[in-house]
Amino acid sequence: MNKLNIGLVGYGFMARAHSNAYLSVNQFFDLKYRPVLKGVAARDAAKVEKFAHKWGYESHYTDWRHLIADPEIDIIDIASPNDTHSEIAVTAAQAGKTILCEKPLARNLKEAQAMVDAVKKAGVRTMVWYNYRRIPAVTLAKKMIESGKLGRIYHYRAKFLQDWTISPDVPQGGTGWRLDVNAAGSGVTGDLLAHCIDTAIWLNGGIDSVSAMTETFVKERKHNLTGKMEKVGIDDASAFLARFHNGSLATFEATRYARGHKALYTLEINGEHGSIAWDLHDLHRLQWFDHKDEGTLRGWRSIHVTDGDHPYMANWWVPGLAIGYEHSFIHAIADFLNSIDGKEPAQPTFEEAMKTEHVVDAVLRSAAAGRWERVG
Amino acid sequence: MNKLNIGLVGYGFMARAHSNAYLSVNQFFDLKYRPVLKGVAARDAAKVEKFAHKWGYESHYTDWRHLIADPEIDIIDIASPNDTHSEIAVTAAQAGKTILCEKPLARNLKEAQAMVDAVKKAGVRTMVWYNYRRIPAVTLAKKMIESGKLGRIYHYRAKFLQDWTISPDVPQGGTGWRLDVNAAGSGVTGDLLAHCIDTAIWLNGGIDSVSAMTETFVKERKHNLTGKMEKVGIDDASAFLARFHNGSLATFEATRYARGHKALYTLEINGEHGSIAWDLHDLHRLQWFDHKDEGTLRGWRSIHVTDGDHPYMANWWVPGLAIGYEHSFIHAIADFLNSIDGKEPAQPTFEEAMKTEHVVDAVLRSAAAGRWERVG
Amino acid sequence: MNKLNIGLVGYGFMARAHSNAYLSVNQFFDLKYRPVLKGVAARDAAKVEKFAHKWGYESHYTDWRHLIADPEIDIIDIASPNDTHSEIAVTAAQAGKTILCEKPLARNLKEAQAMVDAVKKAGVRTMVWYNYRRIPAVTLAKKMIESGKLGRIYHYRAKFLQDWTISPDVPQGGTGWRLDVNAAGSGVTGDLLAHCIDTAIWLNGGIDSVSAMTETFVKERKHNLTGKMEKVGIDDASAFLARFHNGSLATFEATRYARGHKALYTLEINGEHGSIAWDLHDLHRLQWFDHKDEGTLRGWRSIHVTDGDHPYMANWWVPGLAIGYEHSFIHAIADFLNSIDGKEPAQPTFEEAMKTEHVVDAVLRSAAAGRWERVG
Amino acid sequence: MNKLNIGLVGYGFMARAHSNAYLSVNQFFDLKYRPVLKGVAARDAAKVEKFAHKWGYESHYTDWRHLIADPEIDIIDIASPNDTHSEIAVTAAQAGKTILCEKPLARNLKEAQAMVDAVKKAGVRTMVWYNYRRIPAVTLAKKMIESGKLGRIYHYRAKFLQDWTISPDVPQGGTGWRLDVNAAGSGVTGDLLAHCIDTAIWLNGGIDSVSAMTETFVKERKHNLTGKMEKVGIDDASAFLARFHNGSLATFEATRYARGHKALYTLEINGEHGSIAWDLHDLHRLQWFDHKDEGTLRGWRSIHVTDGDHPYMANWWVPGLAIGYEHSFIHAIADFLNSIDGKEPAQPTFEEAMKTEHVVDAVLRSAAAGRWERVG
Repeated sequence: MNKLNIGLVGYGFMARAHSNAYLSVNQFFDLKYRPVLKGVAARDAAKVEKFAHKWGYESHYTDWRHLIADPEIDIIDIASPNDTHSEIAVTAAQAGKTILCEKPLARNLKEAQAMVDAVKKAGVRTMVWYNYRRIPAVTLAKKMIESGKLGRIYHYRAKFLQDWTISPDVPQGGTGWRLDVNAAGSGVTGDLLAHCIDTAIWLNGGIDSVSAMTETFVKERKHNLTGKMEKVGIDDASAFLARFHNGSLATFEATRYARGHKALYTLEINGEHGSIAWDLHDLHRLQWFDHKDEGTLRGWRSIHVTDGDHPYMANWWVPGLAIGYEHSFIHAIADFLNSIDGKEPAQPTFEEAMKTEHVVDAVLRSAAAGRWERVG
Repeated sequence: MNKLNIGLVGYGFMARAHSNAYLSVNQFFDLKYRPVLKGVAARDAAKVEKFAHKWGYESHYTDWRHLIADPEIDIIDIASPNDTHSEIAVTAAQAGKTILCEKPLARNLKEAQAMVDAVKKAGVRTMVWYNYRRIPAVTLAKKMIESGKLGRIYHYRAKFLQDWTISPDVPQGGTGWRLDVNAAGSGVTGDLLAHCIDTAIWLNGGIDSVSAMTETFVKERKHNLTGKMEKVGIDDASAFLARFHNGSLATFEATRYARGHKALYTLEINGEHGSIAWDLHDLHRLQWFDHKDEGTLRGWRSIHVTDGDHPYMANWWVPGLAIGYEHSFIHAIADFLNSIDGKEPAQPTFEEAMKTEHVVDAVLRSAAAGRWERVG
Repeated sequence: MNKLNIGLVGYGFMARAHSNAYLSVNQFFDLKYRPVLKGVAARDAAKVEKFAHKWGYESHYTDWRHLIADPEIDIIDIASPNDTHSEIAVTAAQAGKTILCEKPLARNLKEAQAMVDAVKKAGVRTMVWYNYRRIPAVTLAKKMIESGKLGRIYHYRAKFLQDWTISPDVPQGGTGWRLDVNAAGSGVTGDLLAHCIDTAIWLNGGIDSVSAMTETFVKERKHNLTGKMEKVGIDDASAFLARFHNGSLATFEATRYARGHKALYTLEINGEHGSIAWDLHDLHRLQWFDHKDEGTLRGWRSIHVTDGDHPYMANWWVPGLAIGYEHSFIHAIADFLNSIDGKEPAQPTFEEAMKTEHVVDAVLRSAAAGRWERVG
Repeated sequence: MNKLNIGLVGYGFMARAHSNAYLSVNQFFDLKYRPVLKGVAARDAAKVEKFAHKWGYESHYTDWRHLIADPEIDIIDIASPNDTHSEIAVTAAQAGKTILCEKPLARNLKEAQAMVDAVKKAGVRTMVWYNYRRIPAVTLAKKMIESGKLGRIYHYRAKFLQDWTISPDVPQGGTGWRLDVNAAGSGVTGDLLAHCIDTAIWLNGGIDSVSAMTETFVKERKHNLTGKMEKVGIDDASAFLARFHNGSLATFEATRYARGHKALYTLEINGEHGSIAWDLHDLHRLQWFDHKDEGTLRGWRSIHVTDGDHPYMANWWVPGLAIGYEHSFIHAIADFLNSIDGKEPAQPTFEEAMKTEHVVDAVLRSAAAGRWERVG
């Protein structure tokens, strides 16, 4: 089996999810390539050493440039905060590395475009970890739509609801970088809605125009780096109306102020012949209404997506036994490794992920201007 | 429209449900007969007067014999405690009255048999108010089974769970007659399991043999009539294994000690080609799994039984708008009134309801003897 | 008991629901007043006669002016299509009648304002049948909010999803008046969103501004009255973003193109201390998340709103036994009858219902202009 | 970190689950010991080689005696069919190895007792992989019961429903060893009910007596080893009533003939102060009804068991993100490794697991004799 040396940047939540995927993928998928945990880089020396030890990385650094400079590294995997993505990716592209990057691509459209330009110029392979595409139930939804089960689409509806920042005592900055506009670029729009938008574009095509509103409920928070109360620059909540190119109407919403919801990503699509719905709190199920069912026996079916003929599931256990969140990353790397010798890249590439960046940008413009905006 | 004069015995919960059915049925069903609230009889003079006034009964008595003696009364409706059923029914039969009777038929097999003998001899029309047969979702289940949707049946499962007698302060006797063995005959076996058994026999045929256990968790309760603590003679909980004539296996259970369940009657049937499930807490839904659905898209469907082509529902509102518990009584009386000029009696007649009495008897015998018992 | 003579206009779906409420309310609620079904008026002579016979109306007419002219009629109840509301109400007000009116108040703001002006001038009592306020679970939600269970509100979310007009063969006009802009005024905005808005204002206060989009998926439909294909003037789908006076953000959506949903009105409110959610397909349940619950044991509770201490439920059956859709009308008339001798009118009065009309108007203006609009 | 060399017997479903646990546990739990995949033994030479390669076992054999003979092997892990458990375990005990064994302990009481005697005599450490104890929601249930949240227990209810053997074409023997009585010992009783019983004893204490029934719906099946139709010796379905030592009543049921259920293990416990329910199809949720909640706001809570303060969950992702089935094995091995230097063994040991064997034995005796049997 061909080995591919991974150079990971970051040691946070996503760095763990990616590392687990690298370690597990070959036990569950028959692949020609095997990722090797070659090196990891992140700011704090003690923490990166501990992380490397835990996950079995052969080397560790406090500067990601070491990874890029290392000729043995095949793949640079960016799992650090958003403000670092663009520079790392551009540098890695120039060094001819394959690049995997956590979502969102960057803090803003300009940074993202620089990344796309660089990888295009360098001709390197890329993928963005929009992991929800590879939840088996979501992949099944994609297959159903492609096979015409839903017919013409009338409505798309997505939400991503959390409640972890309601307390004004949650700080911003440092480990709380998701609340720091300088590190994150935006709040729930880039963090949560980006997921919803990526899936929506994948399932339902491009978005034409949006009308958005955002809100920052807590105006000041302590900053972990300065130690002072500072203005909060991110959006705590973001909602928008949208029209897709295919004529369907949509509502999107994300917030970290929805009490009782931890990470409730929900989506629903209503088509001429049927509807589907899914949510992350019960990620192993797909809800499906088939209008072609016998009249008096129609109803929403709850499909327990755990059978051998469901997407990805032949690689796991037996019917009825659910897999979890992190498996979506294993599926992503499996698809990526499979794509290396194929014609089609594993999606979304940086270029494909730009579509989501454009919607995010239009949403933030619309909310700021208080008017409908076209997606660029 | 032909009028049918009703003589009701009782003014409790069931007397209200029946009276409401009489008052509502002709507005929602096209029928040749119209029930008229002619008279009501019950023990307490003040209460029966108030009840008669509330519901518009033309006359009221403290002795049910007045109703039977009244030649204008066409139908005697027995909605009084179980210990009164047999005597009233036998007397009414002798007077040639049509008889409607709340379930269970009586306190025990002997009393029930006397009722059946009397009505058979008198040749009068009867019906027992096993109302759950006429919940639209349950009626739909019946139709599905009859049309072969489930194929060979392997399993039947029913429970009726409540929690209202957990406190030892709940008294027995009088208004608490359901806890008084002399008035009720048995506890949850006759009160709750009788419902489960009636539906089961209707949906799945006769029961061959049972192995049961019962328990009385609170051994003594204050008696409303004597004012003293007295031994509790009823069963608080009752469960049994059963084998049906068709070879399927069953578990049945009822209790008033299941915290969190108010009146949770549930049933599930597993057949070769599919399964159905229903419960009273969401009585407007029927769960249906069709193995003939396309493989990867199989799942339990939740049928919202509110469409015009669902049983009884064309008589109500529009799709999506649910009806409630009391409508099952309206459907029962509609079916009964429709059956008057037809060949088939509305079910269950007293004779048909004896099947349930036989199972109840076998369950109580089995629990007492600690062994399997055949249903008589 | 004091009798109140009802003069009903209309014989459709709502006329049935109101009539049933009049016939049932005194059996279930102790009231000083009893509605009497005095007269009914509607266009088709044969149909109105049949309706009168079915429901026991003493007289029937093809012209509603007869009802208003009848001095014995105390209450004019308007259950006819939207285009008739304003004229009937204004005329009834001038005759000094108490007026009950189906929602929405009228086809547009101007007509609605004329109604409010007329009843104000005449000093007559009014109520609009926004029945969902009186679903026990919704009333319970109101009580919880008022008692501070939710704290500061961050988000309000409401949808009303149906699927009955997806086929282009569904006609407009006549019995299909809801699809005829001349009769209805608007499509789902006035028909479905009006319900969502009324409840929202009641639960969460006034709405400040909206950004809306509407769509008509089927552009032409056969007209029942002309027999020809005609342009469809109503909105098939309508969605809007909103900001409430209390600072909370909202999304609203209604459509008749959401396959699998018959009448799925859903609402969810997220507050500082907890969240509530409700939907019409399981109208007897209220979902409640209490952040004050012990940390590891927090979860959404499904409250089965059927106990004696739940709103209105002491008047019905026993815990666990659900009531249905039509009971909300019975509760409405019970509240109305109770309000006659009280200081507080039963809500919403015509004046109160104008708030919803203003939001509906802003939504339609916003959708037409493609920009945020303030609620007038 | 101290290394512990694993010698695994088997390469089937359970061998994969155990191997994955060994490979993952140290990345997610801080432990003093690290399992090393030293060797694997199983019958088919080609298959075991492939398995060893896939999972990274250093060596592989077709005879498990090689593993036991290897002085470097610390732990023998038995993941082969039931008929091999006893001999392997007894031999491993004699060699002084630590032993981990898949459930059930053995085919029957006698074999199981031999295992217990051998490990007791040898004084070796043991654990049986009853993995469902370590589903976080089930562990949380255990904590709740221990802290008195439920009070006195009245009812225990468990089912394990599958549907994969309904077709008479499913063969027995070989890879179909679960249907071969010689390999499996019994059918669903030992395979599925054993899980239910283990959890029940853990949560609710010992079982006193049982009344059981079993059924074999398909009487003959092709045998994979002989190639002929042979009599089926296992039970396809098994149900029993039980009384626990604590006075609570129980129903248990397992079947492979419940259409629509893949691996639906459900349990419910009703206590004086509250009730809990859990099922394997939504394994990340625990249902909890707290009677101490405020009266009108009581309801079943659905606890999404994914928070950092939920059992085991601090080792995984962030709130809202579910883990799956295989994690229960990772938790088991983590607990086992933690127990090595502690006073308390990880449960259930072979000795503790004998309690389940005794119940299984009583169930099979009761079903055969058609009478109540005491648990030995």
